[in-house]
This record gives sequence, structure tokens and C-alpha cells, in this order.
Amino acid sequence: MIRTVIVGFGNIGACVLEALLESPDFNLIGIVETNKELIKVKTDVSIQDDISKFNDVHVAILCTPSRIIPELAESILSKGINTVDAYDIHSKIFDLKDKLDKISKNNKAAAIIAAGWDPGTDSVVRSLMEIMTLQGITYTDFGPGMSMGHSVAAKAIKGVKDALSITVPLGTGIHRRIVYVELADNADFTKVSQSIKKDDYFANDETHVIQVPNVNVLMDKGHAVNISRKGVSGKTHNQIINFSMSINNPALTAQILVSCARAVVKQAPGCYTMIEIPLIDMIHGDKESIIRRLV
Amino acid sequence: MIRTVIVGFGNIGACVLEALLESPDFNLIGIVETNKELIKVKTDVSIQDDISKFNDVHVAILCTPSRIIPELAESILSKGINTVDAYDIHSKIFDLKDKLDKISKNNKAAAIIAAGWDPGTDSVVRSLMEIMTLQGITYTDFGPGMSMGHSVAAKAIKGVKDALSITVPLGTGIHRRIVYVELADNADFTKVSQSIKKDDYFANDETHVIQVPNVNVLMDKGHAVNISRKGVSGKTHNQIINFSMSINNPALTAQILVSCARAVVKQAPGCYTMIEIPLIDMIHGDKESIIRRLV
Repeated sequence: MIRTVIVGFGNIGACVLEALLESPDFNLIGIVETNKELIKVKTDVSIQDDISKFNDVHVAILCTPSRIIPELAESILSKGINTVDAYDIHSKIFDLKDKLDKISKNNKAAAIIAAGWDPGTDSVVRSLMEIMTLQGITYTDFGPGMSMGHSVAAKAIKGVKDALSITVPLGTGIHRRIVYVELADNADFTKVSQSIKKDDYFANDETHVIQVPNVNVLMDKGHAVNISRKGVSGKTHNQIINFSMSINNPALTAQILVSCARAVVKQAPGCYTMIEIPLIDMIHGDKESIIRRLV
Repeated sequence: MIRTVIVGFGNIGACVLEALLESPDFNLIGIVETNKELIKVKTDVSIQDDISKFNDVHVAILCTPSRIIPELAESILSKGINTVDAYDIHSKIFDLKDKLDKISKNNKAAAIIAAGWDPGTDSVVRSLMEIMTLQGITYTDFGPGMSMGHSVAAKAIKGVKDALSITVPLGTGIHRRIVYVELADNADFTKVSQSIKKDDYFANDETHVIQVPNVNVLMDKGHAVNISRKGVSGKTHNQIINFSMSINNPALTAQILVSCARAVVKQAPGCYTMIEIPLIDMIHGDKESIIRRLV
């Protein structure tokens, strides 16, 4: 049994709790959450404000916002506890790996970072497509679905009480943003709309801003992606490969985190992304039955 | 540079030659083929009847029929040379792994077996789908495209001069077989049709036999697959995941074999299937640039 602690008990943390309870090989020891207001799910599991309150932890599943992951992972790995996270700032993943790799090795622990769906399982799919076709172009088209980052950016604009930004795929990696806004008292819609469209998050995409009386009734945690590649195997062109999914976003992220928590305890000390780990390590069961079922 | 030999120079071997010439990190040392009649492609590469005629070989890519792979892989691994193959008899893969694992370890070599598209990259996709959804059903629907095994089985029926069996996907893992036959002189079509439908290869599927004057003009090496799963992440049902491709069959198999040849030289002694190997090992380039591009 893998003795596991959930660190951060928001949206993703609550789904990780569900996924752990469904997995026969995990023993959920406790939850770490300092902000009691975030806890919206009832549970009998012990909730503490520091991971040191729990003994003999094999894996910490980090479910905090990405921006605090680097420091948090470092502090937990320093205690010799393995970590898994869904760090999603693509441009900084390699630097994080580089930093955590040294800390992991010094403390005989392992970390799997960027273990959500993008980065994460989508990265595995993009890698597989390059293994099948040496040349070609891969497009990742997101949506339709809610973008957390863009919604937060819109909410930060002056005059916005609440906001929801939907990502709409236009194909070949081009996206439209539809931003539903609930205005603060006395705010001017034209000004708000202009401010959103000028914001760095939206300036490069086709962006539409729509005023609504209530953003909350539009909320849906579903998302989707289509990854497509047309490429060349050897000298043979026009090899067509497609991957698509339509999923509940936090539930999928949580399940992938749990699968990677299963894998991290089997790795040599160091820090890894999902494409550096044999997939079989992420699946429950003995090697023989997995190979007989899936290969 | 990975010093590589192609063993078996039929359909797949010729495509592996093309894929190796397109790959910047391989040095093609030679080809092993005992049956000169099989060689239909012109090449300057040295063709010998025994792998021992080549020096300092890092990898042998085995492109022979599956039934002779077990013995061939054993003999080459025994010389301390790494092997890669696309062995495709699903029910015997684990047993082959078990056997070659011991031989590989005794000779400090590594083998990657079942490294085509099914088994192979499809196995990776099925594994990834289970990593994303713990419960659910995965369907693999093949085609439309030519089945080598079924075509050979139909050709072996008395009265058949030439045959082509097309696999047609009916969804949820159910397939139709359409068998195009060119009759031998004086053969009776009704008898031939009945014999094909009674054959073990066809008895369990909806099978149609069609007489044609010339099978050869129908030949096309394209194939397709759709892998779909509807499953559960944690406690969240109805997660929908799809993978599909439309590809030139031998060209894709060859490219995957070459990608795995790149990986096999990086493995500890032993025998592996593709789901036991980090995908990053199969991709050309340094780790940092791969992670920055694909994760």
C-alpha cells in the first residue's frame, strides 16, 4: 500500500481524494491544507497544516496552484518524500525538472512533475506521434472548455465582478476566446471589454466579450482536446494520426496524478516528466497481467 | 551513431532501410537475407547471409515473419547484439518476453519486442487510456485495411490462386471480413467460399467472399485503427477518449522499429515491450530540447 498525503485541498485535491479512495493500492494518510475556507468537501481524513504531522509518507500529491509548486516540491523532497504535481507552466518545466532533480537525488526521493493532461498525457501523445512519424506538424487544439488561467486574468480586470473564459478551437492550433463577464456596480461594459482584449492573455487571440447577469450558472468543468499530426514514416508521407478527448478536467487531472503517484515510488531518485517514465509503472497490477491485457 | 543491421529484407525490411536513411543518428552497416528472391529493392548496402559477417553491430532490426522471431532473436541476443522486432502474436508476447529476458541478461544485451503498431504504439495508447481512467471499456477497431494474416489464410484454401482479406470495423471491437479471391483453374467458387467461411481465421466473423479476375489491382498497403474508451476518472464517469489513424502499414511499422532501435541501446540488459520503456528514449535529440518541445 502506498502511503499518500494530499497537499492542497481545492478543486483538484478533492478529486484526488475520490481517485485515491477508488484505487486499491493506496492508503490515504491525510490532507495538508492551511486555508480552512478552501475545504468544501466533507471527509473523515485527518487535515493538518503541515506534512510533518504525518509519519512514514511515501508520496505527497501536490494540488496547489502551479506558481507555488517549485518551492513546495523542494521543501517536501528535502524531507525524502516523493512528490507528484501537475505543474502547468510549459515554458518553465525543464528548469523546474533541473532544479528538483538535484534536490531529489540529494534526498533519495523521486518527483514526477507536469503530470496532468497538458502538460502530461497530451505530452505522451505528442511524443508517440513523433515516434511514429519523424517529420510533420503536430497541432494541439484545446476546447471547447473553460480556461482557468484566462478566467482568472479576466477576473483581475477593473470593473469585472466574475468572469469565465471559454477556449474554442479553430483548428491548426488557433483558438478563439469567449469571455463571459458579470460587471461590478457602475462598471462600463465597453471599457471592460476593451481592457480584456488588450490584456496579454487575450491580445493575440480572436476574443469576444459577452456581458451576462450571472457567470456561475454557465460554469461547467468539462474540457476537450484534439491533437493531430500529419507526418512522414521513413519516406512515406501523409500518415494521419489523431487523438481527442472530452473530459471532466479536475477529475482527469486527479486520476493522472494518482497514476503517477503509483509510478513515482518505483523510480530511482531524480525528477521526471511523464515521457521519461515507463507507462507500465503507472498502471495498477502485476506486469504479466498488464502486458497480457494491454500489449 | 547507432550501428544497425536489418535482418530480413521483405516488405518491412525495405521500409526500415528508408527510415534508417532518413534518421540522422543511425549508421546502416548491412542487411542479412538468405533468400535472394525476396530482395526487390536496389541498394548499395552490403547484403550477407549471416549477421556474423558484420562487425561491431549495436542493433539488429528483425524484419522476418513473426513465427521465426523467437529463435532468431535468441540467436542474435546470444551474440550480445541488441534486437528490436514487431512480433505480433498477441497471446505469446509475454512468454517471448520471459524467454528473451533471461537470454538478454546473460549476454548483456537488450531486446524490445512487439514494437510495431499493434502490438506496439496501440498498446501504448491503450495503457495511456487506463492511466487516465481506472474503470471502463477500451475498444480497438481495425481497418478498413488489408489483414496480412487473413489474406495468407485465404490463399492457403484449395482452389484459391490469390486472395486479399480486408478488415472492416463495425465498431465496439467487432469486424467484418471481405475476402477477394482469384480462383485457380477449374476451381468452384461456391466450394471455395464455403471453405473460407469455415476456416478458423474467419468462422467467428461476418465474412463475405467475392470473386475477382485479378487480386493484385486491389492491393493497397494502407490501414487504419480507432481505439476508443469511455471510462471513469476517480468517481467521474463518461470520460471519452479516442485515438485514430490512417496510415501506410509497412512504413509505419518500420518507423516504429527504428524509433525503438534508438531506445534499445539505452536500456539495461533485459527484454521489454514498448510500455516498459520511457518514450523519450525513442525520440532523436537531447533530453532538454525534447522536453521543451513536447511536454
